[in-house]
Amino acid sequence: MSNRFGPHFCYSLFVFAVGLNTSALADEGMWPFNAPPLKQLKEKYQFEPTSQWLEHLQKASVRFNSGGSGSFVSANGLVITNHHVGADTLQKIGDAQHNYLRDGFYAKTQADEIKSTDLELNVLMSIEDVTARVNGAVKSGMTSNQASSARNAAIAAIEKESKDKTGLRSDVVTLYQGGAYHLYRYKRYDDVRLVFAPEQQMAFFGGDPDNFEYPRYDLDICLFRVYENSQPAKIEHFLKWNSVGPSDSELTFVSGSPGKTDRQLTLDELADTRDRYLPYVLGIFNRREVLELAYSARSFENARKAREDLFGVQNNRKRYDGYLAGLLDPQIWSALNAREQKLRDAIARDPKFKSTTSAYDRIKNAQAEIAKNAPLYNYLEQERPITVGYRGPRALSGDLFKCARLLTRAIDERAKPNGQRITQFRDSARESLELELFSSEPIYDDYEILRLTNSLTDFASQFGVDNPIVQKVRAGKSPHARAVELVTGTKLKDVSVRKELYSKHAAALQAAHDPMIELARLIDGPAREARKIYDAQEEIKKQAYADIAKARFAIEGTGSYPDATFTLRLSYGRVRGYEQDGKQIPAFTDFAGLYQRSAEHDNKPPFDLPQRWIDRKTNLDLSTHFDFVSDADIIGGNSGSPVVNKANEFVGIIFDGNIQSLVLDCIYTDTQARAVSVDSAAIIEALRKVYEAQPLVDELLGTR
Amino acid sequence: MSNRFGPHFCYSLFVFAVGLNTSALADEGMWPFNAPPLKQLKEKYQFEPTSQWLEHLQKASVRFNSGGSGSFVSANGLVITNHHVGADTLQKIGDAQHNYLRDGFYAKTQADEIKSTDLELNVLMSIEDVTARVNGAVKSGMTSNQASSARNAAIAAIEKESKDKTGLRSDVVTLYQGGAYHLYRYKRYDDVRLVFAPEQQMAFFGGDPDNFEYPRYDLDICLFRVYENSQPAKIEHFLKWNSVGPSDSELTFVSGSPGKTDRQLTLDELADTRDRYLPYVLGIFNRREVLELAYSARSFENARKAREDLFGVQNNRKRYDGYLAGLLDPQIWSALNAREQKLRDAIARDPKFKSTTSAYDRIKNAQAEIAKNAPLYNYLEQERPITVGYRGPRALSGDLFKCARLLTRAIDERAKPNGQRITQFRDSARESLELELFSSEPIYDDYEILRLTNSLTDFASQFGVDNPIVQKVRAGKSPHARAVELVTGTKLKDVSVRKELYSKHAAALQAAHDPMIELARLIDGPAREARKIYDAQEEIKKQAYADIAKARFAIEGTGSYPDATFTLRLSYGRVRGYEQDGKQIPAFTDFAGLYQRSAEHDNKPPFDLPQRWIDRKTNLDLSTHFDFVSDADIIGGNSGSPVVNKANEFVGIIFDGNIQSLVLDCIYTDTQARAVSVDSAAIIEALRKVYEAQPLVDELLGTR
Repeated sequence: MSNRFGPHFCYSLFVFAVGLNTSALADEGMWPFNAPPLKQLKEKYQFEPTSQWLEHLQKASVRFNSGGSGSFVSANGLVITNHHVGADTLQKIGDAQHNYLRDGFYAKTQADEIKSTDLELNVLMSIEDVTARVNGAVKSGMTSNQASSARNAAIAAIEKESKDKTGLRSDVVTLYQGGAYHLYRYKRYDDVRLVFAPEQQMAFFGGDPDNFEYPRYDLDICLFRVYENSQPAKIEHFLKWNSVGPSDSELTFVSGSPGKTDRQLTLDELADTRDRYLPYVLGIFNRREVLELAYSARSFENARKAREDLFGVQNNRKRYDGYLAGLLDPQIWSALNAREQKLRDAIARDPKFKSTTSAYDRIKNAQAEIAKNAPLYNYLEQERPITVGYRGPRALSGDLFKCARLLTRAIDERAKPNGQRITQFRDSARESLELELFSSEPIYDDYEILRLTNSLTDFASQFGVDNPIVQKVRAGKSPHARAVELVTGTKLKDVSVRKELYSKHAAALQAAHDPMIELARLIDGPAREARKIYDAQEEIKKQAYADIAKARFAIEGTGSYPDATFTLRLSYGRVRGYEQDGKQIPAFTDFAGLYQRSAEHDNKPPFDLPQRWIDRKTNLDLSTHFDFVSDADIIGGNSGSPVVNKANEFVGIIFDGNIQSLVLDCIYTDTQARAVSVDSAAIIEALRKVYEAQPLVDELLGTR
Repeated sequence: MSNRFGPHFCYSLFVFAVGLNTSALADEGMWPFNAPPLKQLKEKYQFEPTSQWLEHLQKASVRFNSGGSGSFVSANGLVITNHHVGADTLQKIGDAQHNYLRDGFYAKTQADEIKSTDLELNVLMSIEDVTARVNGAVKSGMTSNQASSARNAAIAAIEKESKDKTGLRSDVVTLYQGGAYHLYRYKRYDDVRLVFAPEQQMAFFGGDPDNFEYPRYDLDICLFRVYENSQPAKIEHFLKWNSVGPSDSELTFVSGSPGKTDRQLTLDELADTRDRYLPYVLGIFNRREVLELAYSARSFENARKAREDLFGVQNNRKRYDGYLAGLLDPQIWSALNAREQKLRDAIARDPKFKSTTSAYDRIKNAQAEIAKNAPLYNYLEQERPITVGYRGPRALSGDLFKCARLLTRAIDERAKPNGQRITQFRDSARESLELELFSSEPIYDDYEILRLTNSLTDFASQFGVDNPIVQKVRAGKSPHARAVELVTGTKLKDVSVRKELYSKHAAALQAAHDPMIELARLIDGPAREARKIYDAQEEIKKQAYADIAKARFAIEGTGSYPDATFTLRLSYGRVRGYEQDGKQIPAFTDFAGLYQRSAEHDNKPPFDLPQRWIDRKTNLDLSTHFDFVSDADIIGGNSGSPVVNKANEFVGIIFDGNIQSLVLDCIYTDTQARAVSVDSAAIIEALRKVYEAQPLVDELLGTR
């Protein structure tokens, strides 16, 4: 077993890389619902979903705006997602007396259901192509800054019109890195209540060691209920539960919101990802993992407070480790290179793409400017990898600075015409902004001081103590003394203070003399300057990627799918095991395997079982399928996506990819890469026999 | 308790910083035994140690060449040190069936004592000032490279002459950063056998959370016995054991080998430490901590294999975090600045120091060159922070590359005149080199592959995939594939292969076609080039620091002590509690406190007690002092130093500093900074009543 450790996926990649280009009819693609893979499904599986079939699945799918997927599974608003998607809420509604992550939760009656502090759920209602209008706003001869502003103004106008007309959340989504713009309209739910969660040790059995591994034995589920007007929402499109689960080789579908893929990036941009961006984010994650582990080890209560952030950091560290290993594999890189070279050759051959030939260099140059601007942008304006607990600029981690930034920006941006505002502060995004700003999520002084001290230290180290912005930010104090001053001095912990200030004007904000707000104000100038540079270069890239996309559509046809954009996509694939190190890994695990794996590790964390799982072992049918793998094309953000069969029945829920799938960021492969799901049969068996949640089972099976 | 977390020491520093310059007769200094603080001891404590007193303590003190201190405590060669100093050996002599770190060890008879794989102990026999001869070798008009070579040749000649004449290990030590050169002669012991170690959970009770904290409850001890000609060595100078321990306010002495301090560095060099070097090493430690924690979590056996490396990494991470926080504290920085400015003003005022005024800029410029050269130097030649398990260049971590490097270098250097060799390969160092190269320490393929994959990935990220040296090193493979090829292909795991190759010439090495040796050879050119640049700049700094030292001696007198150099030093101080956050922390803890702290944490790791400590609690006198603090001036490397009273009796053993002491790297303070020791009384009580080691107790007390 000498290769069962850390970044061992390279070895596996070596095996599949040979076959990267062999699978002509692979189950590839994350397809928008307005351009589903009908041709592929018909050719390979002789399956032709109707438009009703597609609409039903689309509207039964739910996006967790915090970064995951889910689906409706009852007419009364029941939503199933992953435990690790719901965990952020389990963390926020807990306190020193209620450790829902550790202990789990079950609301026996609707009155017991607990309202989340800031969850927003989105259901996709329609998609409209608005490319012509968005691109029409950009006139030739405009500078990049002008073009970027004009494009944003057009997008803001489209979103506002749509919101005013339909009342629906309206987002213009950039597809093909700028090749197309589609308007997505969503029904929003923001009264979301917790119904059921298992213990985290069951949802994340095997912990970090087994994360991204297979075979797995995780009950990674969590159930919420959406409410409207304080009543359970009535849901037309919900998935019928199949309590048998899928069978081996069965065709299944995944409907969810994959976050981001890089498959259409140019090789130059991927090289920047490999050599600069990924080492940068891994440096962040290493730093934070150590910080949070050390903090957590000091007391049980610390561990509780940091649990969710720590999970997010470890999960991302492992994911990006895998992606970097993929990009450092010469065989992967050759495949990426061959793919691009083929298109570039075709572009070079055809005189009508003459202006497109420069697109690759335009992207390369813009990316170089973005890299140069990255330290200021990342430390002062916004960190690109958005991870739980660490939104906001790298120099100033923590929830209190985030509130101060949101407040000052909200008030400043409000004074501008809608079209000139930063996306987050447009009229069409107001409800989501307020949900975030007024979240009742608990804020802990010690944890805030810890993160702020750490990020201020990092900032001073990155720019040097004598840097003028560093000098201003530290105000003559050590990072710790400054963090203490800011955290104990601000009043923003109080939601009512935030609401009060939000309702006023810039002058009132200034008059508050809140140290955290003053700090946000202090760095606002250079932060916006960094954003402006970033936006201008992004605009150059959008135009160049649009040129490439146009050429690709002309050369390869339009039968491709855009990179993931955290919007609803349809993937498909067969339930399939795979070979690893000469061993066949079966598609399914079962409950017997769970008990066996725990025993192998002396039932010690993270392989320990909750007492009720030990006590009720004899109740269980140990041959019940627990988790399974399929070759559907998924990525982070798909967590919680329903897996359905051809009858559109719920047969499982995505919760992970195996370690060989971490390269799916930049290239699809089905040799070993697999999506990992919890089986619908396991969920029913566990709810019934371990958690004694028969009413919940009845609701899921429609027998109540 | 809102400030009981991570880097909270800044807050504490804030308090003592105010008093940085107030304590005129502080217990400051790490004094060479040939320049002891006689004046200070007489003035403050009316104590005048005789030369016999000093010689006895000097010769009873033992340096662990692996990086720690210890002392003789019986006529039959018994040596006491810290568990965390002996842990490296406990790790190396263990295997899947023998987990000495976890379980502890006690040799009931001498036949049961286990020989270490590569421990070397040094006892200081004499010190001789050779400054004139070393400086005399450097002629005016020489380039820095010529001067560096000439100085090294002179040092090599002195060491070889001394070794040939006395048979003793002979090291020329650079003091005052180049202000003086002293020849240290040591008696070597390399047959060192393990006698006793407690369970690591007792030695390191409280783990990383309590590391560098106080109050503490750690039995951080380990006992070895040195042998000569397969018999226990007869020791003339050993410390008499005092089984009562010290009392509050008692004057005590610490005799050990502090590793490195930066108190005489110029402010410019300290700024480089703060802004470049410390962030750099902390980045390494964060990366390794995450790697090793993830590896360790996968199985008990992994955890056993990585245990010692992980401890070293965590310990260093916390230590350097504290040092960086100190340097980022404006009040500390002001004190450092004032100290330097005072000397610079005095130098500027006196025309005879005219040539010295440029010394500060010479150091600054040389340091800038060292910084520029640092990536190549660190990744290819040698990493400056020498941590357990990670010696050698950063690009190629692991024991197998280390062997390949040592072998190729040993053979190449052997062909040169002694004076031109790298220090480690001089004739006078041959025995130590062979001890290291032929160590029977176990080498694990999976762990080697893990570290090598990680460091190759890091190397590619730092220099970019297209860098020519990166290209050569990775040989067209992914980091993991290359690591597998190297680790499974080399024969260097076999000590007899190393011995065989070492006995031959360069041609035989080449003929072996060992992939690891070929890799070492491949990067040897650029690595040596980086070393040459480094050495030349270090020579410039040495000359400049020598100028400054000369001026300082003239202005401030010679009553100061040089920065720590991992050579024997005498410190002194009183047993003293301190105030923290308005609370008085008493000087002593006791066994009752141990049980209480464990109970507060539900007896869960790292606050769990071994079963025998639970079972035998009733046997113990719970009021026995366990650990204590004093204001003696210590730093890393002092671990295991004996603490003696005025009667030269062993009353305790240093094992840590508190978190407020982490700034002692650059400045002494006694307001809160404390050295932490195990009480001699606790050791006897535990050996007798918990470990039932009466024969050992008898030997320590001289009653056998």
